[in-house]
Amino acid sequence: MARREHNLIPENSPWKRKLFRIIYFADTPAGRIFDLSLLVLIILSTVLVMMESMPRVDLRYHFFLVYIEWIITILFTIEYFIRIIIVKNKKDYIFSFMGIIDFMSILPFFISLFFPFTKFLSIIRLLRILRVFRILNLMDYMNDGHYIVQALRNSSRKIYIFLLFIMILVTILGSVMYVVEGGENGFVDIPTCIYWAVVTITTVGYGDISPVTGLGKFISMILMLCGYSIIAVPTGIVTSQMKRGMTKTRVCKRCGNSENDDDARFCKTCGETINLIP
Amino acid sequence: MARREHNLIPENSPWKRKLFRIIYFADTPAGRIFDLSLLVLIILSTVLVMMESMPRVDLRYHFFLVYIEWIITILFTIEYFIRIIIVKNKKDYIFSFMGIIDFMSILPFFISLFFPFTKFLSIIRLLRILRVFRILNLMDYMNDGHYIVQALRNSSRKIYIFLLFIMILVTILGSVMYVVEGGENGFVDIPTCIYWAVVTITTVGYGDISPVTGLGKFISMILMLCGYSIIAVPTGIVTSQMKRGMTKTRVCKRCGNSENDDDARFCKTCGETINLIP
Amino acid sequence: MARREHNLIPENSPWKRKLFRIIYFADTPAGRIFDLSLLVLIILSTVLVMMESMPRVDLRYHFFLVYIEWIITILFTIEYFIRIIIVKNKKDYIFSFMGIIDFMSILPFFISLFFPFTKFLSIIRLLRILRVFRILNLMDYMNDGHYIVQALRNSSRKIYIFLLFIMILVTILGSVMYVVEGGENGFVDIPTCIYWAVVTITTVGYGDISPVTGLGKFISMILMLCGYSIIAVPTGIVTSQMKRGMTKTRVCKRCGNSENDDDARFCKTCGETINLIP
Amino acid sequence: MARREHNLIPENSPWKRKLFRIIYFADTPAGRIFDLSLLVLIILSTVLVMMESMPRVDLRYHFFLVYIEWIITILFTIEYFIRIIIVKNKKDYIFSFMGIIDFMSILPFFISLFFPFTKFLSIIRLLRILRVFRILNLMDYMNDGHYIVQALRNSSRKIYIFLLFIMILVTILGSVMYVVEGGENGFVDIPTCIYWAVVTITTVGYGDISPVTGLGKFISMILMLCGYSIIAVPTGIVTSQMKRGMTKTRVCKRCGNSENDDDARFCKTCGETINLIP
Repeated sequence: MARREHNLIPENSPWKRKLFRIIYFADTPAGRIFDLSLLVLIILSTVLVMMESMPRVDLRYHFFLVYIEWIITILFTIEYFIRIIIVKNKKDYIFSFMGIIDFMSILPFFISLFFPFTKFLSIIRLLRILRVFRILNLMDYMNDGHYIVQALRNSSRKIYIFLLFIMILVTILGSVMYVVEGGENGFVDIPTCIYWAVVTITTVGYGDISPVTGLGKFISMILMLCGYSIIAVPTGIVTSQMKRGMTKTRVCKRCGNSENDDDARFCKTCGETINLIP
Repeated sequence: MARREHNLIPENSPWKRKLFRIIYFADTPAGRIFDLSLLVLIILSTVLVMMESMPRVDLRYHFFLVYIEWIITILFTIEYFIRIIIVKNKKDYIFSFMGIIDFMSILPFFISLFFPFTKFLSIIRLLRILRVFRILNLMDYMNDGHYIVQALRNSSRKIYIFLLFIMILVTILGSVMYVVEGGENGFVDIPTCIYWAVVTITTVGYGDISPVTGLGKFISMILMLCGYSIIAVPTGIVTSQMKRGMTKTRVCKRCGNSENDDDARFCKTCGETINLIP
Repeated sequence: MARREHNLIPENSPWKRKLFRIIYFADTPAGRIFDLSLLVLIILSTVLVMMESMPRVDLRYHFFLVYIEWIITILFTIEYFIRIIIVKNKKDYIFSFMGIIDFMSILPFFISLFFPFTKFLSIIRLLRILRVFRILNLMDYMNDGHYIVQALRNSSRKIYIFLLFIMILVTILGSVMYVVEGGENGFVDIPTCIYWAVVTITTVGYGDISPVTGLGKFISMILMLCGYSIIAVPTGIVTSQMKRGMTKTRVCKRCGNSENDDDARFCKTCGETINLIP
Repeated sequence: MARREHNLIPENSPWKRKLFRIIYFADTPAGRIFDLSLLVLIILSTVLVMMESMPRVDLRYHFFLVYIEWIITILFTIEYFIRIIIVKNKKDYIFSFMGIIDFMSILPFFISLFFPFTKFLSIIRLLRILRVFRILNLMDYMNDGHYIVQALRNSSRKIYIFLLFIMILVTILGSVMYVVEGGENGFVDIPTCIYWAVVTITTVGYGDISPVTGLGKFISMILMLCGYSIIAVPTGIVTSQMKRGMTKTRVCKRCGNSENDDDARFCKTCGETINLIP
């Protein structure tokens, strides 16, 4: 259980504790049913927003969609207030990441009651999809997800520098293409040329803009080969970090260092012998 | 030989055993000829379906194609019934994965005799191509294929989480683009925007839909750089699993060293003999 | 501090030393403010060049943009001369990589005073963006960037051979497509076909040129599958180099074990102390 | 020196030996000049073929290009015959890979003297570009290239199975798209649909064919995500093989096994102690 949620354990009454166990955990049958219902409602809500954006569908089923939306939002609102009521430290929940997401899941609907329905509000409603991470709070999945997030976090500084290199490369080469193509053929201004350079170096290659002059094609080939080759760099960074996290780490009894290799016989930090049985 | 096929060994008669050895194994000359003929028929059959889909070819050679199709299907049907006859536990074969594929390889043709020929049935006939895995049941190839499948299976949970991240990312960013591009320029509804986001983040980049507004191009650049960088994640996952599966899996009885290679006979740390049976 | 900059330390006067510490280092509050201002000016200058290339923006704000450009260039010129004055060995700075970049950051503006403003000169001004590496001269970031550059340098020879393979492949297959598509459908001459081959093998795939004949499509599929599969090669090269550079580099004096981590204090094989100075 | 070339060492006369050393090796000044001239001629010849394919260039410079082509071909012919004369075992050279390339470098030109100049013959002339590998016969470069080729060869079987998976996947999904898009919107026959599937799964994404129906877009998203994720597989295969080839391998004195790890104290094949000094 996340550290923050320790502050959320209610003390007072047994029914609060029971509700807490159902809502925040998934180890009782009621808890699992709750999680499943929550998942169904989130997916249903997401599909609803998608359908509302499709003109033909919205025309035929508009009132039906709004009706379902009312029900879902009311259910989410009831759940939100129950969560607030049963936790001890209410501020901790309301201002936590999940708490804010939960709040923004119900807010747009009420706003749209008073103000006209706008595309923007419906997109906020899509943020409900982030609530799905609550349900994935099963130990196993969180371990694996956490492992991926850890690997990404450890390599983040190298990735920032890598992205900085890329940005500088696309700015310079994009500007060169602006001069080479003479501001025509789609290369109308430098920001557009930078957009083209990103499309090319990431090997996406829409084709909405592509070089026409011979020199332009030559420069674009250099950019493509760069993008093609340096895919290796972020891969190498992340893979190395993952390897580190994956190798069984031996814990030293004396100093607690957990980053010893599998084949280490002596702790690298304090020199203490490490037993061969992990 | 796969465990399931142990139940298939016929007991009764020598000619059944002989046929079994030819059909299910490839270690006799007759067995190898059988496998080769099967491969030729499968490839021929696949090419036939392709040619039937090409209007010019189908016009000129239609009756010829149908004639060859009859012969191939009759041969496959005979083979299917022989397989059923010679195995001991017939249910095990009929309901095994390969058994179902074999059945579906001959069924559509007979259905199309009674019902008009449809595109759908011809596609079912293409499932015959999966029969090619039977022929690849040579130890070496199966080892390597099995190794790839194992690596994929071990990393499957991490890959599911990764795909979940991707789905949530494309849903949210696709919806943002729906608002930014105002439902025009191809971004007509949210499912289409999600399709565009997948096309972009996987760096496929058809170009059938591409952003027109400046802010849209900016958001698309973020999406592209994400897709370009996080190719590293599934690569790191699968590569780590492959490294595990490839080396260092034998445990030494005496010193407990578990990083000995698969083909090691002596423990690299203490010199103790390692049994060859894992 | 880079070796070259050792020659730059001024000796004479205390106010020169003080300025030197502010400009070339970032460990004093004044130094950090200086770096931050420099970063702001560089980014502002880059955005200015971008806006000047956009016709609508340039029309409305032209004089405003030129005015800001004057101020920035004057500030950079003052900074350049201060740098020259305060260092001891002036030649070392003027002809260093950073020195040349700094010079070229201010030169085009003065040239354009005498000669008409051309697109070319404005691109030279964009080279200012390389000055951002000065600010990143913080130990940490330089370590990580240096690490990436080292990995790329060590693998450079293998990467050259890899790129040579690619060039030969695209030349040969591009020429084959020239014959197959008969010099039509966009495949008008061999250089254009080579351009198409690079676009395809790097999986960029603009779509400005794509095969029309059946045989052309078949050959292009081979090219695509090649490009898709051999992305692995530069990745493997760079990843191996990174693994080498990342871990296991300290050599134990006593037992010669060279696979100790960078931060190990005791040899993992024999327990001997490892000196902290590499 | 490659094993085959041992048979090529001439015995008879000193001037033959001298020429052999110049032509087949690069360790004398004359040898290096020879290699450099050869490289210049190959590049010049390649550029010539490219220029001949460009209509505007060919119109203005046709006779000049033909003139240069005569000179180059005559030089290559003289070199070819010198190589034949000075080697001892002439068959070994003529039928070696390089020997055949050398022959095909000069043959098309002579054929085109008797038969009209065709595009096809000019492409054969481009095979001269493969002669560049002769010049790269410097120990260092050959080591690195050999290392890449070895890694590819060792992983070849796994790569074949991987490509087989891909072929089956694109055949099945391409056919499904044929049915879903109803043979329209570019998906005109099954081979074209398979071409589209390869374009998509390799993330090239020309956009010449792209799905129009909703279900088609959904299926294409599955295909894209597959292609995006399983880039990891060939990368993992090749990277693992490269890692094997790169780790310093300890050679056991007794049994000669060279695949012991760096940190091995006992040979994994025969159990013999391995000295710590490699």
